[in-house]
Amino acid sequence: MNIQESVLRRVAMRALVRVAPEENARQQVDLLLEADLRGVPSHGLLRLPRVIDRIANGVTDPAATGRHEWLAEGYLDVDGGRGLGPVVALSAVAALKDRVARTGIAVAGVRNSNHIGMLGYYAEAAARDGLTMIALSTSEALVHPWGGRRAMIGTNPIAIGVPVGAGEVFMMDTATGVVSMGEIYDHANRGQPIPDHWALDAEGRPTTDATAAKSGAIAPFGQAKGYALGLAFELLVTTLAQSAIGRAVQGTLDDDRVCNKGDVFILIDGPAVDLRGYLEELRAMPAVEGANGVLIPGERGRACREDRLRSGVPVADEVWHRIVELAGGEE
Amino acid sequence: MNIQESVLRRVAMRALVRVAPEENARQQVDLLLEADLRGVPSHGLLRLPRVIDRIANGVTDPAATGRHEWLAEGYLDVDGGRGLGPVVALSAVAALKDRVARTGIAVAGVRNSNHIGMLGYYAEAAARDGLTMIALSTSEALVHPWGGRRAMIGTNPIAIGVPVGAGEVFMMDTATGVVSMGEIYDHANRGQPIPDHWALDAEGRPTTDATAAKSGAIAPFGQAKGYALGLAFELLVTTLAQSAIGRAVQGTLDDDRVCNKGDVFILIDGPAVDLRGYLEELRAMPAVEGANGVLIPGERGRACREDRLRSGVPVADEVWHRIVELAGGEE
Repeated sequence: MNIQESVLRRVAMRALVRVAPEENARQQVDLLLEADLRGVPSHGLLRLPRVIDRIANGVTDPAATGRHEWLAEGYLDVDGGRGLGPVVALSAVAALKDRVARTGIAVAGVRNSNHIGMLGYYAEAAARDGLTMIALSTSEALVHPWGGRRAMIGTNPIAIGVPVGAGEVFMMDTATGVVSMGEIYDHANRGQPIPDHWALDAEGRPTTDATAAKSGAIAPFGQAKGYALGLAFELLVTTLAQSAIGRAVQGTLDDDRVCNKGDVFILIDGPAVDLRGYLEELRAMPAVEGANGVLIPGERGRACREDRLRSGVPVADEVWHRIVELAGGEE
Repeated sequence: MNIQESVLRRVAMRALVRVAPEENARQQVDLLLEADLRGVPSHGLLRLPRVIDRIANGVTDPAATGRHEWLAEGYLDVDGGRGLGPVVALSAVAALKDRVARTGIAVAGVRNSNHIGMLGYYAEAAARDGLTMIALSTSEALVHPWGGRRAMIGTNPIAIGVPVGAGEVFMMDTATGVVSMGEIYDHANRGQPIPDHWALDAEGRPTTDATAAKSGAIAPFGQAKGYALGLAFELLVTTLAQSAIGRAVQGTLDDDRVCNKGDVFILIDGPAVDLRGYLEELRAMPAVEGANGVLIPGERGRACREDRLRSGVPVADEVWHRIVELAGGEE
């Protein structure tokens, strides 16, 4: 299906305001819809039914915005109170934004919150405000350590936002697994094999069978280096957010367990530096044979967004029907 | 040659105190020697002759420790005054350490300094002090953007240190190129081919010829994801340190140009969390077939260090002879 953004937003809002305060619902829907607009459906409205189920099951409190405690002038400790991920995250980031005007840098460690969606959402918004952000999250253990047989590390994403001059922004957002579990499920659903470096099966053997990989472990991106980074993020977030680690993490892939992963936002009010010339030079670089040229991270997503705001957002039929059902009908 | 650590230190110090104040020389030698001890000779005493040449050529000021200006309570701007890299870096980190007791987090942006050596040195020291550190540096453009033909990004390393309980530490330190230029030179010197995904030649064609790769570009690690990270670090450091970017960066690989790369240290005084059980579980994981098991980043280096403190440090003959010569003789 291809659905106008405004229609999607209205129907998703109708579904969520049945169980959540309007402003909180708006923040949650905004974030999910933004992922669909940018071509990241795995973090999009596909997740709305689970968000609603989690509220129904009492593991998400739709009214909570999080309890803020400044442990030091630049260190914000946030107990999310089981709130909606974006609601808790945006509240924390707003507090950091107030603070960095004085401290130059501030960090929030957030626990007891829910899935906050596409990390790049927060990093890009910060950069639009002229601030630099490093955002990190832990997640369920789906990635194996390099050389090991079992999943024990999250797909732990990082997003970095940097203002690059004249209101323009740089934003990158990547997970530290070589591929997402969603992509592996997608291959399994279509009966397609996966490349041999993507995953191990449940016994810890490399596999090209997507179905076998579903119960196995995803490889870290970039082999040993990506493993080192993903593990560093796991330890860093667990420490700063005082959240769960490794196989103990739950609540972003299920609908009935309290979510115990952590999120960390580092916000920096740095000097204004114009980096547009450098980025332009990168874009203009001749392509290596077989490639389409150099992309600047984040730009394909922004172009996709522009296009979909005009011509509609592709949504899987079953996702659309489920959301309409949760909204109590189309209009 | 295999040389006792104490002898190496004494001879290196004799060479450097001829042109640098004793305390500054000690910090520089400490850092270089630490790399040799940990099995990272590319960042070790191999670099001492260049350090000395740069002082002789007037592009390094051996007495400078850097001018500190707090732009905000947690934001330290450092003009290194062309000082020795470790001297400027350690001075900046010491100032951050004082500050985080009050602010919880602080950042230093350092420019106009010299090569600071192994980033992990600073991250591990911070973790030993019970603090979390993220350290980033830019460097000469040696890495090509994913899909592009030319080098325009540094090998931009990141190091992360996290205290993991009972005085133990986690430290990872990795560059964002798939391999170092030193490794490519090493293959060229031995007349060996390089794997086909390591580098492009000067015309931007993939090559297995190490000599051709020397004038070409190194691939980012982890393909598009590693490119995105390396680029993000380039932009982040350039902004926060107000340093040079891309092909304009110079002064860490030559002996006669003022160094204009940047370094960023983010220091965090976070909660004390015991992560040793998790790391132990990782170490104990059965190995995937063909692998030797799971390594925790940083641990191989620490074991190597223990071993070399006992049994001596391997140093290339020509490096040793050059240092002895610079010291004016062996004793």
